[in-house]
Amino acid sequence: MSLTPSLDRLIHQLQKLPGVGPKNAQRLAIFMFKKGADFSRDLSEAIVEMASSVRYCGVCFGICESDVCEICSNNLRDHGKICVVEKPTDVFHIEATGQYNGVYHVLNGLISPLEYLTIDKLNIRSLVSKLNADDCTVGEIVFALPPKVEGDATMALIKKMIKRPFEISRLAQGIPTGCEIEHIDSMTLARALNNRHQMDADKKAVNPAPGDSSQGVHQTKLIQ
Amino acid sequence: MSLTPSLDRLIHQLQKLPGVGPKNAQRLAIFMFKKGADFSRDLSEAIVEMASSVRYCGVCFGICESDVCEICSNNLRDHGKICVVEKPTDVFHIEATGQYNGVYHVLNGLISPLEYLTIDKLNIRSLVSKLNADDCTVGEIVFALPPKVEGDATMALIKKMIKRPFEISRLAQGIPTGCEIEHIDSMTLARALNNRHQMDADKKAVNPAPGDSSQGVHQTKLIQ
Repeated sequence: MSLTPSLDRLIHQLQKLPGVGPKNAQRLAIFMFKKGADFSRDLSEAIVEMASSVRYCGVCFGICESDVCEICSNNLRDHGKICVVEKPTDVFHIEATGQYNGVYHVLNGLISPLEYLTIDKLNIRSLVSKLNADDCTVGEIVFALPPKVEGDATMALIKKMIKRPFEISRLAQGIPTGCEIEHIDSMTLARALNNRHQMDADKKAVNPAPGDSSQGVHQTKLIQ
Repeated sequence: MSLTPSLDRLIHQLQKLPGVGPKNAQRLAIFMFKKGADFSRDLSEAIVEMASSVRYCGVCFGICESDVCEICSNNLRDHGKICVVEKPTDVFHIEATGQYNGVYHVLNGLISPLEYLTIDKLNIRSLVSKLNADDCTVGEIVFALPPKVEGDATMALIKKMIKRPFEISRLAQGIPTGCEIEHIDSMTLARALNNRHQMDADKKAVNPAPGDSSQGVHQTKLIQ
């Protein structure tokens, strides 16, 4: 169905967004028109401002609005500890916990041959050369990758490429907060059983002692 | 979760769109960032152009990019026949059938006291004064309103407010094309049975004869 030329153009653009089909794009375009010129101006200005301001951090490949992100340029953070994540937004999710004071490295994906995500499409070589450099001051690597085949493959590959020994940990796997035991899949439940820990450990994880280098990341399995 | 200031601002704006929650807004914003500046520029330009170009037609309240829409300003259309629809997009859906050559009047909603949609919030008085004017040349009204309580109430109200007799019809109700009889609700099936028509009528409706004034709108019930 063809509407007016400028509505059609907007619908065409909106359809390029993920999860927005033809009907939904038409609904959004008509909604914008009905909300009036102020609404459309605010939205388009927000898009333009985002596109001109946001960029990848030159050090960790997270997202920020300057050349180096606030975390990488903060001398109060522990630069000897590097947390490897899949996506830029993972950084913000981990920051929201308030339980980590090191720096990050964003891979921008996981190894997945089926999706043509190979080593050269991800920020893996930059991480490895950072870790293999002679003047590297990193002593600890925390893998915060999704617990699935692609995450495990990526982790294994990086481990294989680094030449020096590091203290390497991965996020604890187990049951999420607030859920019923009966709703947990058996794989997760099996891991939660195998990785069970002494009840005193919880206290330490949630309220880490000042200067405690583990800072609440459960180092239940050191995967050297 | 707070990202960078300009991403947060964009997410805030995107959440105002219908059906876009916080997670979806964040996903859309990150998608736009990843697609690069060209994508965001095209989208924001399309929004701005739409907001500055599209307006309501001064005659029928449909949407167009000039003061009077192409249909209202087209002398080849039958201005003696007016089709009353709920939404501006309904005009384009009916036009897509190629079965109607009259003009339109868009109510911009249906009477619904529960949603505070009263007579003064809709384009009802303008329709009625057009129809009650001494120099009115309209002879036929086609109601293409949704077959539900609000549509019926709106139709009844308009019929009550018009003073002269008109040939009034409403869209045929029955089973939609391509569906299985077992999937039709009983109310629709009952109407399809009551409004059944001679099989020759179909031929006439789909291929109206040149100069045929009914132009395929099934006038199964004239509701005077």
